[in-house]
Amino acid sequence: MKRKVKVVTWGLGSMGSGIAKMILGKKGFTIVGAIDMDPNKVGKKLCNILDLEENEDNCCIVTDKPEQVIKKGFADVCMIATASFTKVVFPLIKMAAEAGMNVVTTAEEMSYPKALDPELSEKMDKIAKANNASILGTGVNPGFIMDLIVIALTGVCDKVDNINVSRINDLACFGKAVMVEQGIGLKKEEFIEGVKNDTVAGHVGFLQSFGMFEEAFNVKFNDIRQEKEPILTTVPRSTEIVSVKSGDVAGCRQLGYASLGDKIFIKMEHPQQIRPEIENVDTGDYITINGDPKIDLQIKPEIPGGIATIAICVNMIPLVMNSTPGLKTMLDLPLPRAIIGDVRDLVNDR
Amino acid sequence: MKRKVKVVTWGLGSMGSGIAKMILGKKGFTIVGAIDMDPNKVGKKLCNILDLEENEDNCCIVTDKPEQVIKKGFADVCMIATASFTKVVFPLIKMAAEAGMNVVTTAEEMSYPKALDPELSEKMDKIAKANNASILGTGVNPGFIMDLIVIALTGVCDKVDNINVSRINDLACFGKAVMVEQGIGLKKEEFIEGVKNDTVAGHVGFLQSFGMFEEAFNVKFNDIRQEKEPILTTVPRSTEIVSVKSGDVAGCRQLGYASLGDKIFIKMEHPQQIRPEIENVDTGDYITINGDPKIDLQIKPEIPGGIATIAICVNMIPLVMNSTPGLKTMLDLPLPRAIIGDVRDLVNDR
Repeated sequence: MKRKVKVVTWGLGSMGSGIAKMILGKKGFTIVGAIDMDPNKVGKKLCNILDLEENEDNCCIVTDKPEQVIKKGFADVCMIATASFTKVVFPLIKMAAEAGMNVVTTAEEMSYPKALDPELSEKMDKIAKANNASILGTGVNPGFIMDLIVIALTGVCDKVDNINVSRINDLACFGKAVMVEQGIGLKKEEFIEGVKNDTVAGHVGFLQSFGMFEEAFNVKFNDIRQEKEPILTTVPRSTEIVSVKSGDVAGCRQLGYASLGDKIFIKMEHPQQIRPEIENVDTGDYITINGDPKIDLQIKPEIPGGIATIAICVNMIPLVMNSTPGLKTMLDLPLPRAIIGDVRDLVNDR
Repeated sequence: MKRKVKVVTWGLGSMGSGIAKMILGKKGFTIVGAIDMDPNKVGKKLCNILDLEENEDNCCIVTDKPEQVIKKGFADVCMIATASFTKVVFPLIKMAAEAGMNVVTTAEEMSYPKALDPELSEKMDKIAKANNASILGTGVNPGFIMDLIVIALTGVCDKVDNINVSRINDLACFGKAVMVEQGIGLKKEEFIEGVKNDTVAGHVGFLQSFGMFEEAFNVKFNDIRQEKEPILTTVPRSTEIVSVKSGDVAGCRQLGYASLGDKIFIKMEHPQQIRPEIENVDTGDYITINGDPKIDLQIKPEIPGGIATIAICVNMIPLVMNSTPGLKTMLDLPLPRAIIGDVRDLVNDR
């Protein structure tokens, strides 16, 4: 029997701990290191934080000193789930790749880092190649439902006139941080001010999705625009975390446009709000390709963001390990697919 | 400017001539040879058969002598659209690959030829590698909507309990050959007899799709079954080609099952019939992945079979040309995507 695939998880927030749990639920993985800066987690066994019965694969001690576990020969893969932005995760990725580890990260900007950070992307590619490692950023969005699947669907089209992609989801299950990022609970004027001064971040990902489209279609969009609009509720909406009065902000409708010539080629719409069902809004993923043929796809309800991002990060591990070295995107690697059996059987000889 | 991508089209039936038209509608292609055995086409200019205004890219003379155009250095790609079965297209593929041409074929069995013809598959792989050529079979189904897209969707799943895939389409626009293959217009007993003696062929593709699933998931199904049932109409249905009386066969419902252990893991359902709307049947593509998360996808109406198969064959050309040599499947190559600009810009140096 081959030895197990060794993983270090860096970041044990809701994504990171979900990823760790999924990894530990699959055959052939072992988590050999876990890094988190939360004093409530440091020094504890990973299994206790994840509420799992202890075994040889889940009993490592959480550390806040990366150098204890990010070192040559210690692991095959480092899973980084700490932040959304390339500049923020770059030093972590660099450290892991220099230790010869393959890297998978949930950082949204890393799904297509060239879009905003071409120089860092080049650096990461060089570091990866020099250390025989592969680096991938992925997630459900960006990385899958508003870009990868759309691109694949155009494969059965002769002509593509334009594309509309919409993802309508419910944020009710998320915590305080997400409410703040999306401006939920604000007055309309506060939301508009928050968009201006960047305290209302909205969705991170459209620029990365557009970058993937440009590469897949070998085009250069001559105009890319984003807008963030408040979703004002006409009735009170509340969750355990936040209560929104009638007339106030229940979510952020993010719009993205990419043009070829003087025509909009791709329109993206991503209204994220709490409890859309109260105003009879159905959640779902919707893709319309206007072309020959026209394709109208819907997934109702939407692919749920949390578990889907966790799953695609884990499912890509064997494909990243089998890849040639370098900085990769979902366009470079084989089609994602669920890990059904033992991950060791999916990984080429190491 | 790079030279144009040179194509030989082999077979000018409805698929082959559609492919030729699509190729000629894109920038950067030229058709340098066309082969067909129909005496009404042989000796004529391709542009006349396709009803196009003549130009330098479409004016080759249709020949029934393959050796006139299947020869070293004559073309980059040979597009074979003559038959559904690997054994039937093998000699054509062999000839083209031995001439150093990349091959794309609509032959359904070629979308995963190892499923039924492992020895021929090995031969094709060797011939392709020896001649620095790549070979791909593709189409909308098998090759895309009932397999490739399903596999990709499981990429966002932690657990996959089972999968249901259904493709409900309308055959009203097809000709006599398809009506016969599907048993349309027969009495129930004649249909059942036709299934037994193989005159009712139904859909060719489930075994190939199951082969793709096995490879993608690295599993071995311990039971694969297919069934063909008559779709009996309760009201008269007719097209320009065929009239079906109440109680007779308006289509063929093909069912496929693949089991892991003692449980059905994938169920495929493909009822093909004329004018389903008369009995209030909506056409569409439906994918349900029961797992964590559950995913419910629909594309309504269904991705139309003819144009979609034509498009994916053409759109895969640059990806096949850029591939390493050998016999390939859709799992081996990058994600399909529409050709938006000039195909020359998509093709690596030759």
